[in-house]
Amino acid sequence: MEYSFSKSTEALTSSVVREILKLTQGSRVLSLAGGLPAADSFPIQEMREAFNRAFDLGATALQYGLTDGYLPLREWVAERMKAKYMNVGVDNMLLTTGSQQAVDLLSRVYLDEGDVVLVENPTYLAAIQLFQFKGIRVIPVDADEEGMNLEDLSRKIAQYKPKMAYVIPTFANPTGKVWSMERRQGLLQQCKENNILILEDDPYGEIQFDGEAPYRSIFSLDEHPKNSSVVYTSTFSKIVAPGLRTGWALGDERVIQMMIKAKQAVDLQSSTIDQIALHQLLSNFDLVSHIDKIRASYKERMEWMNELLTRQQWEGVTWQKPRGGMFLWMTLPEHFVSADLLKIAVEEGVAFVPGEAFYAADTKKNTMRLNYTLLNREDTELAITRLGAALEKYSKVTV
Amino acid sequence: MEYSFSKSTEALTSSVVREILKLTQGSRVLSLAGGLPAADSFPIQEMREAFNRAFDLGATALQYGLTDGYLPLREWVAERMKAKYMNVGVDNMLLTTGSQQAVDLLSRVYLDEGDVVLVENPTYLAAIQLFQFKGIRVIPVDADEEGMNLEDLSRKIAQYKPKMAYVIPTFANPTGKVWSMERRQGLLQQCKENNILILEDDPYGEIQFDGEAPYRSIFSLDEHPKNSSVVYTSTFSKIVAPGLRTGWALGDERVIQMMIKAKQAVDLQSSTIDQIALHQLLSNFDLVSHIDKIRASYKERMEWMNELLTRQQWEGVTWQKPRGGMFLWMTLPEHFVSADLLKIAVEEGVAFVPGEAFYAADTKKNTMRLNYTLLNREDTELAITRLGAALEKYSKVTV
Repeated sequence: MEYSFSKSTEALTSSVVREILKLTQGSRVLSLAGGLPAADSFPIQEMREAFNRAFDLGATALQYGLTDGYLPLREWVAERMKAKYMNVGVDNMLLTTGSQQAVDLLSRVYLDEGDVVLVENPTYLAAIQLFQFKGIRVIPVDADEEGMNLEDLSRKIAQYKPKMAYVIPTFANPTGKVWSMERRQGLLQQCKENNILILEDDPYGEIQFDGEAPYRSIFSLDEHPKNSSVVYTSTFSKIVAPGLRTGWALGDERVIQMMIKAKQAVDLQSSTIDQIALHQLLSNFDLVSHIDKIRASYKERMEWMNELLTRQQWEGVTWQKPRGGMFLWMTLPEHFVSADLLKIAVEEGVAFVPGEAFYAADTKKNTMRLNYTLLNREDTELAITRLGAALEKYSKVTV
Repeated sequence: MEYSFSKSTEALTSSVVREILKLTQGSRVLSLAGGLPAADSFPIQEMREAFNRAFDLGATALQYGLTDGYLPLREWVAERMKAKYMNVGVDNMLLTTGSQQAVDLLSRVYLDEGDVVLVENPTYLAAIQLFQFKGIRVIPVDADEEGMNLEDLSRKIAQYKPKMAYVIPTFANPTGKVWSMERRQGLLQQCKENNILILEDDPYGEIQFDGEAPYRSIFSLDEHPKNSSVVYTSTFSKIVAPGLRTGWALGDERVIQMMIKAKQAVDLQSSTIDQIALHQLLSNFDLVSHIDKIRASYKERMEWMNELLTRQQWEGVTWQKPRGGMFLWMTLPEHFVSADLLKIAVEEGVAFVPGEAFYAADTKKNTMRLNYTLLNREDTELAITRLGAALEKYSKVTV
């Protein structure tokens, strides 16, 4: 048998992060690579009890359910979204296998091969991969600390006639950046004027370190849910646990209904029991306090990494201290190639994600992403020490 | 905002079955429509204990895992497959969100828009939908009680140059049919000669009523796993519970690796906790006895429905008594339209799936699919009585 794969598989590169994750599983390599929540952030005992209560419901917990998702959980999410100025009902929502699936479903029902999606440069690598896998053109828009450059956005809209813009405006992956209100409104306005759908990916919005009010989602700034120019997606992965693979998408009912039909075709529905157990958890759980604990814990870890990095005084190495989320984005001296550094780093016993994976174009090879949520205090210190050793070795080779 | 959906969404019809399922939820309508296992077939108590043991593993149960699936569960599946003459290792396998996702992933990595897939006529409607959603041409091959007609297969291969054949050779959905060994080997041979990949969907193979040895999968008849012309998929949905959404796909490592890469892009992975709990269940559970109980129970339900239908003596109505699986396929008199009958039937308080949804072409509108696994004895009797009343009303209208 001679296998002959589809055209799109040519663009199907394996995720660098997942490959590194596989490489480091069970080995002595300390990983700053993944986007894994801290294991001690999971409400294990409460979750166990929630699953037990789910089983009290009998066969329903193990039977097929609706493609849209478990109704009581959708109702819970709708209530929570209202507190964030997003006035949605259950018909504006579907539950997905993580927010990753929301990106897939929307791109399947909204984009054809050759269509253009605008993204920040750099942005979430799995979104780039997914768009390219579908034969969609990914066009990066220049960005600074405040978000997308609105002039470059305007140019790119005129030049490429995009059908969608994909953004992570709050604690972006990989940069940890927060978009200013001006940029949020600027993107929304330009997209509305040009009939461009915005996909707002917000997995990290709850993980905020400073004391300010939560940042407003772009979805909440638009008219909604009817005729919204935004589809919003988020997930329980970072505030409860990723192993339950439960996310949600919000939008105009017509868009959501189309995504539900697509989900029927691709996997019928996500896990019934996980959705029921999540609802059981949330009905008997102080999620707000739980998120406060995660914030405090991650802030402490971030501060610790920031302190360790500051102490190192690596020449020409810069980063912006994150205001939330799970990642610290680092820039090495201009001629450095972080992918080469990674090889030495893995030998030294530490892994990270080379920044080049996050660029759709105009790649900056001297960048890298460090996760600070997974490792404990001691391991983080050891990891940064090892990274220092790797940098020293690398510098000697490249000079 | 003017939404403009992708070309493929034009082909995106909502599943008739899922729509009927939604319609009948919580109403007095007795449903013979779905493909739902009997609620009393779920090992609820054992599953509850398995989840509790999964939580004993601590944070692992709630953390991200590998895209391929939980390794101990893959090892368990590989062992079970060996007993069915399929000598596969864990690298020939990925776990999926039900076997439906295996169909999606394979079609994404193997088929381009305009490619041709051969199917039996009729066949599983969600597979037809999925292929058409991707812009793939679905070409039906004539079939009789023994499986695909090998001469028509040969003609269709010459005419359409298909890239794949999708089949359910054991207790097919919707017909309940079992392919003969000759047809299995004939399909395999013709596909090998013409470099056509076979996707063998086997969700119902374990639900066998007669005492014979299990029917051999086409995958097991081919050289495998290396260079196999077959990708085989099955699921825990019918032998444990569908709400866990756990299926698997087997094949040549190159094909499986490509499907894993696609899965990375579409949803990263399926539920961690469900896979771990399933493994915990299977490590402490007599699955063989459990399946024997399901077989006995479903056989009894099938015999009961068969008896009720025989008693009715509806004129010109025929069916083949199923040898396994979950469905009975019924043919009405030639000029009847089962979709019209359904409207009356729902008023009478019973639902089924009109056969036309299962045809890619050459639709026979006088067919319908009845499920016999969900309802208990009393409700099945009531459902068939109501169906009789509907048929009587329908006959009066159409005469």
